[in-house]
Amino acid sequence: MTDSKRLSGVLSPVVTPFNADLSPDADRLIKQCQWLLSQNVGLAVFGTNSEANSLSVDEKIDLLVRLKEAGVDTSRMMPGTGCCALTDTVRLTAHATKLGCAGTLMLPPFYYKGVSDEGIFANFAEVIERVASESLRIYLYHIPPIAQVGFSVDLIERLVTRYPKTVVGIKDSSGDWNNTYSMLERKWDDFRVFVGSESFLLANMRNGGAGCISATANVNPAAIDDLYQNWQADNADDLQRALDEVRDTVMAYPMIPALKATVAEFGGDDAWRAVRPPLVSLDADKSAALAAALRDIGFEMPGLS
Amino acid sequence: MTDSKRLSGVLSPVVTPFNADLSPDADRLIKQCQWLLSQNVGLAVFGTNSEANSLSVDEKIDLLVRLKEAGVDTSRMMPGTGCCALTDTVRLTAHATKLGCAGTLMLPPFYYKGVSDEGIFANFAEVIERVASESLRIYLYHIPPIAQVGFSVDLIERLVTRYPKTVVGIKDSSGDWNNTYSMLERKWDDFRVFVGSESFLLANMRNGGAGCISATANVNPAAIDDLYQNWQADNADDLQRALDEVRDTVMAYPMIPALKATVAEFGGDDAWRAVRPPLVSLDADKSAALAAALRDIGFEMPGLS
Repeated sequence: MTDSKRLSGVLSPVVTPFNADLSPDADRLIKQCQWLLSQNVGLAVFGTNSEANSLSVDEKIDLLVRLKEAGVDTSRMMPGTGCCALTDTVRLTAHATKLGCAGTLMLPPFYYKGVSDEGIFANFAEVIERVASESLRIYLYHIPPIAQVGFSVDLIERLVTRYPKTVVGIKDSSGDWNNTYSMLERKWDDFRVFVGSESFLLANMRNGGAGCISATANVNPAAIDDLYQNWQADNADDLQRALDEVRDTVMAYPMIPALKATVAEFGGDDAWRAVRPPLVSLDADKSAALAAALRDIGFEMPGLS
Repeated sequence: MTDSKRLSGVLSPVVTPFNADLSPDADRLIKQCQWLLSQNVGLAVFGTNSEANSLSVDEKIDLLVRLKEAGVDTSRMMPGTGCCALTDTVRLTAHATKLGCAGTLMLPPFYYKGVSDEGIFANFAEVIERVASESLRIYLYHIPPIAQVGFSVDLIERLVTRYPKTVVGIKDSSGDWNNTYSMLERKWDDFRVFVGSESFLLANMRNGGAGCISATANVNPAAIDDLYQNWQADNADDLQRALDEVRDTVMAYPMIPALKATVAEFGGDDAWRAVRPPLVSLDADKSAALAAALRDIGFEMPGLS
């Protein structure tokens, strides 16, 4: 099967900037998306790192419309659209699809715990039947450390078998390479397996994976894309080690506030520091220490201003 | 301080009926709420057992308006209004307050895990400042087995100290009596501690608690209220044991589908069996077995039809 719409490569779960009143700042988001595209990184807006679950469906739809109006390339976009409520997921997914987004990254409904594969399957079946669009491409979002609810390999197979043109990939943020490998082993037709951290990017590419969708792609996009492009090169392991060093430096701090502090520090724009509760911004000392640690290893964010 | 608006007694997290297309069935919900009030049980609509997190904010607002229009007593209502997104929580809470609901039961934002007390405090402060109503009464909803995110006793104290007229109580669904007791011990002024299961009702009342908000109040309301009214009677321990027997019988099955199956069986109304994905209805065999087990212990639901 040839499906030119399916995505591969490196995508960033784009951090969401806020105004002083904590409303989403569409202008800054547009600018950040344009910068990420200039680094050859796609746009998984409304991911975990986007604080997407701290935004209402209306806020997300408004931002998508603004991005589209600004000419941001929707063929590079994979917005997160999975909500707790079936009706919210349907509404947001239908909007994203109508706006031409290449795909949507879909969390399972994550409030109720211990739910069955049968119940999660029924949820996705309802979403697919209700959105009822041949343009819909769903990438499953498996992130059990946060969502607690996830996708078993058997459930994925059941979804892919029933909806082969619609359920086209997964982001595996389990942090467990064995889990990713168990998906790759099944070799579903043209199924796109993204790892949720660039730490596993080289391993993923060597085993038939599609790329990565990683927090750190917000701040280190070009280098991550470089490994994606050159995973077969002689220096691929060196490139992987360099990526890991940046990632480890950032991840020594709470992830989302640290990403925003990095964008603020290296882009010279303090407005980026704002997070929505329940998150808390990095304080000035930690922010400076993080920036210093990054500079120590030669990190930079070229073209960001 | 005297605050006549604060609630006590037994409340039911009212199960939400669905139409065949899975839209909420307002008429059946109104009827169920009227029956529960006739059993002297208050209405914690939009709780966990209401599948509230499988409903959109718009669906919840529509149901509240329908309940109000039908004359359901809002002074007995404590709708759940805590969502992942700050803006959703504010919108739903403001509507509930405007409609005259006695209080709102508020989950913390539950997507992001490992968040700090400072971040949860900031979230509640934003909600309270934005709703900006002297009529607002918040009951914190502590249910770590499901939400994963919860309230430490120190965080509760900080909220009560800062907003003594607004943060007026808690539902403790930790399932850990020691946790409930640690809240009761603080003896915050007129703070209402509800246990999340009637299994702890007698213990709670003997230690200064306010009552319970329990799944099983959907099906066994009068008996639970009877213990609440007569917790100082000689036969209180016997009443508690009888409640536990019913609860244990129902809880042998998945909770929400079991509650709905029980309402369907004893009310003779199969429409009640419907649940929204990711939940799955009890199958016919299990439903019949549950009903038989309940009849064996003399259970009935008088007045339900």
